[in-house]
Amino acid sequence: MEQWLKDDERLDYLLAEDLRIIQSPSVFSFSLDAVLLSRFVSVPVNKGKVVDLCSGNGVIPLFLSARTKADIIGVELQYRLYDMAERSIKYNGLEDQIKMIQGDVKEIPPQLGIEKYDVVTCNPPYFLAHELSDKNVSEHYAIARHEIHLTLDEAIESASRLLKQGGKAAFVHRPGRLLDIVTSMRAHRLEPKRIRFVYPKFEKEANTLLIEGIKDGKPDLKVLPPLYVYDENNQYTDEVSEILYGDKK
Amino acid sequence: MEQWLKDDERLDYLLAEDLRIIQSPSVFSFSLDAVLLSRFVSVPVNKGKVVDLCSGNGVIPLFLSARTKADIIGVELQYRLYDMAERSIKYNGLEDQIKMIQGDVKEIPPQLGIEKYDVVTCNPPYFLAHELSDKNVSEHYAIARHEIHLTLDEAIESASRLLKQGGKAAFVHRPGRLLDIVTSMRAHRLEPKRIRFVYPKFEKEANTLLIEGIKDGKPDLKVLPPLYVYDENNQYTDEVSEILYGDKK
Repeated sequence: MEQWLKDDERLDYLLAEDLRIIQSPSVFSFSLDAVLLSRFVSVPVNKGKVVDLCSGNGVIPLFLSARTKADIIGVELQYRLYDMAERSIKYNGLEDQIKMIQGDVKEIPPQLGIEKYDVVTCNPPYFLAHELSDKNVSEHYAIARHEIHLTLDEAIESASRLLKQGGKAAFVHRPGRLLDIVTSMRAHRLEPKRIRFVYPKFEKEANTLLIEGIKDGKPDLKVLPPLYVYDENNQYTDEVSEILYGDKK
Repeated sequence: MEQWLKDDERLDYLLAEDLRIIQSPSVFSFSLDAVLLSRFVSVPVNKGKVVDLCSGNGVIPLFLSARTKADIIGVELQYRLYDMAERSIKYNGLEDQIKMIQGDVKEIPPQLGIEKYDVVTCNPPYFLAHELSDKNVSEHYAIARHEIHLTLDEAIESASRLLKQGGKAAFVHRPGRLLDIVTSMRAHRLEPKRIRFVYPKFEKEANTLLIEGIKDGKPDLKVLPPLYVYDENNQYTDEVSEILYGDKK
């Protein structure tokens, strides 16, 4: 086992998909939001080309590999996370399907190819740079969570440039940024088609937003049924449990 | 009773509020959406000035009169509906609180007063004019339901002109128009602050959108818990039943 891990890393399970993923609590751990996005996005089953932007330790490409035979490229700016993703992919024997690239999302479209992809996913940094109040936070976390090197609009623009006409882009973000995200999507030719709000519990406000748009699609937005994370007993709901653990609840 | 009613009109109950309302099946009946809007909107309890645009037979002013002591003005283009609203207001003895005006929403702000109101509600026509496929539909229904005399953007612009800075505008519409509504609200200085999606049942897509914005407010959107109309047995949920019937379920 040791040959796969560095420093304080550990090898966690992605139970639903019988995969393993390298994580480090001091650097980055994938979030439920990323898992929900990889289940929410529409992907072709048998072939196609998918890019995941802001890939972190590769959780979305890993989850997507269980849903599609398409080629998947993950793009991550930070070497430390890129390197963890690379090793996770090798550990799972998925190097033929998933390629990681260390690079800047703003500059990646010409390198990967303009209008060549069927699907782009992105779980971008959620918080504005000026919201970075805790100066002692690890730099890795700060970059992953705050718009320091990449704004929401830049992420959406890169997604659009990568997509073929009719290709799909899916994002996860906070509901408070709904208006920014839909304005930016429309400005970059991504017509919002499906929205799903995620609520921590019944009777609570939504805390997460899943949204998918189609490049040059025509306006026709659907608001899907709510997704609840916890039930009244603070246990995962059946839907979330199934996503995280498969049938193993 | 007869002195209150014309033609095929009937006197229906607004049970939750112990009010009565004159309706005519051949002209117009109020919808659940209007009732939900009059419960959703934030209103001052003791005083203030409220305008309801596209008032129809006055259902929103009538419901609001049970939630606020504010002065309420209803604006309705069609004489037939305006006249029904007038008689319902008199029947309920509410003529000191509610005034109806027959007029065109596009042209009403200078007449009522620019930036003089605390709250504006509007349940506008939902459908685009070109979606009017059934040419045999009653003209009253066509005008109430289709953007023949008033577009969504025009309704939002009038609402904004009537509102003081910090005043609140609340609309009900179809989720498919979400992007149009938020774009238009922002263009007219109404910052969306609260959204609630209405779902006909669990596991179904939303079919109604309630949204409230503040004139010149700062961006901070909340997505409230879902509102379900029917339960698994096709009965109204407790929440809707309470809104429609009070505690009388």
